[in-house]
Amino acid sequence: MAIPMGDPAGIGPEILLKTLIGASGSLHVVVVGSAPLFAQSAKDLHLGGAFDAVVTSHASLQSAQSEGVGRILYDIGGVDLTLFAYGEVSAMCGKAAYDAISMCVTLVSGGYCKAIVTPPLHKEALQAARIDHIGHTEILAHLTSSNEAVTMFDTLGMKIFFHTRHLSLSDACKAVTKESLLKTILLCDAIVSSNSVFDKALPMAVAGLNPHCGEHGLFGNEEGVAIEPAIAEARARGVNVVGPIGADSVFHQTKVGKYSCAISLYHDQGHIAAKTLDFHQTISITWGLPFLRTSVDHGTAFDIAGKGIADNRGMARAIQVASEYLASEEGLS
Amino acid sequence: MAIPMGDPAGIGPEILLKTLIGASGSLHVVVVGSAPLFAQSAKDLHLGGAFDAVVTSHASLQSAQSEGVGRILYDIGGVDLTLFAYGEVSAMCGKAAYDAISMCVTLVSGGYCKAIVTPPLHKEALQAARIDHIGHTEILAHLTSSNEAVTMFDTLGMKIFFHTRHLSLSDACKAVTKESLLKTILLCDAIVSSNSVFDKALPMAVAGLNPHCGEHGLFGNEEGVAIEPAIAEARARGVNVVGPIGADSVFHQTKVGKYSCAISLYHDQGHIAAKTLDFHQTISITWGLPFLRTSVDHGTAFDIAGKGIADNRGMARAIQVASEYLASEEGLS
Repeated sequence: MAIPMGDPAGIGPEILLKTLIGASGSLHVVVVGSAPLFAQSAKDLHLGGAFDAVVTSHASLQSAQSEGVGRILYDIGGVDLTLFAYGEVSAMCGKAAYDAISMCVTLVSGGYCKAIVTPPLHKEALQAARIDHIGHTEILAHLTSSNEAVTMFDTLGMKIFFHTRHLSLSDACKAVTKESLLKTILLCDAIVSSNSVFDKALPMAVAGLNPHCGEHGLFGNEEGVAIEPAIAEARARGVNVVGPIGADSVFHQTKVGKYSCAISLYHDQGHIAAKTLDFHQTISITWGLPFLRTSVDHGTAFDIAGKGIADNRGMARAIQVASEYLASEEGLS
Repeated sequence: MAIPMGDPAGIGPEILLKTLIGASGSLHVVVVGSAPLFAQSAKDLHLGGAFDAVVTSHASLQSAQSEGVGRILYDIGGVDLTLFAYGEVSAMCGKAAYDAISMCVTLVSGGYCKAIVTPPLHKEALQAARIDHIGHTEILAHLTSSNEAVTMFDTLGMKIFFHTRHLSLSDACKAVTKESLLKTILLCDAIVSSNSVFDKALPMAVAGLNPHCGEHGLFGNEEGVAIEPAIAEARARGVNVVGPIGADSVFHQTKVGKYSCAISLYHDQGHIAAKTLDFHQTISITWGLPFLRTSVDHGTAFDIAGKGIADNRGMARAIQVASEYLASEEGLS
């Protein structure tokens, strides 16, 4: 796994250091970032012993990997410590974060790594560095010329796709049409069908939009007008999908193994389910890239950066999920 | 506590029997219903020993209670077993369920019990019995002439109020106005202020409506137009309330003890949070009645009635929550 450092002024380096220090000996990762920054962070936070080797070239990386070194830091510099401050937006940090991601893509393309696991970025720092993307997903899609990057949540195994995300709730209601939902179902089915982390014996489930799925049109008719027809059409095309299932049941049922995944109709529907169940261990997975990518789903937390109090459970879980998914794809689990 | 049997054709009697059999010796309850029905259910389900005494009048109830009997069945008959069938809608069962509730209200009014804990009813059976209410909450409000019954969820201590419930999601968006939300906040504050189960040192929290609370109007403006002004007005009136807090954070934060309760803006917002966290142990509490009332939040499950496979965790937890709340009100905890 390749892991870019995230925005160095945020909690990324801290949660990475804490996670690597606590990791088992069998973990193999290549963290890409500034070695002086990590050294300074470790000193400031009284942490140590996170890396087994520091490399500065593909050749030295290959050499370390062939020797079976587990926790490798690939130093690409980019952070001038005399100009650095925790919790401050800077073009330098935005650029350094971007360069780390770019190097990770190079490492995966070159066969050095199989997946990318990402700590958080800061939108404004990217803007300050004149990088025209708002986050990792967009940067990775751009660097790999991927058109259809799809976000999925995995919370302790409960998998959730999203029909829409960053729309107002009233616009999200309007976006529940037969055509658009059918497109989402087919897209999710293509992902489920081609990745062995999903239990293909189980159907996918589409959540309802209204309370109790509208109770036969009593409050809301999107179920009858759009959702049921979309599911019927998908089933006619051979897709193993059921629903609509009341939104207060579908996530519980997905959690206990009744469905391969749930399709959430709007941002908060799936977000509330995932993050109330386990806020820290909700991991974002990006499908549609040439490689597996997992990510924490929290921010850079500039307000607590450099204080040593950041919670690294999300980072640890993002690495664990990537390991599980890779093992599953390789038929090892 | 008084416990009506629920619809006898559903899983009510079964989950009651299972819960009472598993209960500790310190539990004091009066179950109201048909003794022959409970005897038949116990036989059919191979359960026994749920009741310590069966009474048929207030006098015999008082006598049993004065002797410290724990699990009392108050037999009011009403179920003709020759006409009874599990899982079938019938006027007889609808009426028997209603009569049990009515007797429970009489027992609480008469000082025999302090709270009512309810298993599920069946809407159609009530209709068949020509009872013009759709559920326990409406029946209890009617029998006690209560105008403003308010539903709250308690899931393992996480407390959630609802601004709206049975509206379509798009209508629920429109129902988020400054005036109506202010009214809800003041109503919740009145409940929080007058019941010792709430931690009054903590603020109440209002959830956001749009993803990330609309990100400063980027997707959705209800936060700026209605929610923030309603909260500001409530705070100006001395109410300890904060928000809007992103809906994917507010329930987690309420769970971990940052707020006394969360105010959910629509049905599924709070339902998803509660039921994904713990589907079986989500308990409904009704405020605004002359007594405490807790309830399971599942249905009669006619499809599995009489089969012995019903899950009684909800019923057990509803009794436990009522005990905790009563103890808290009496200053015992």
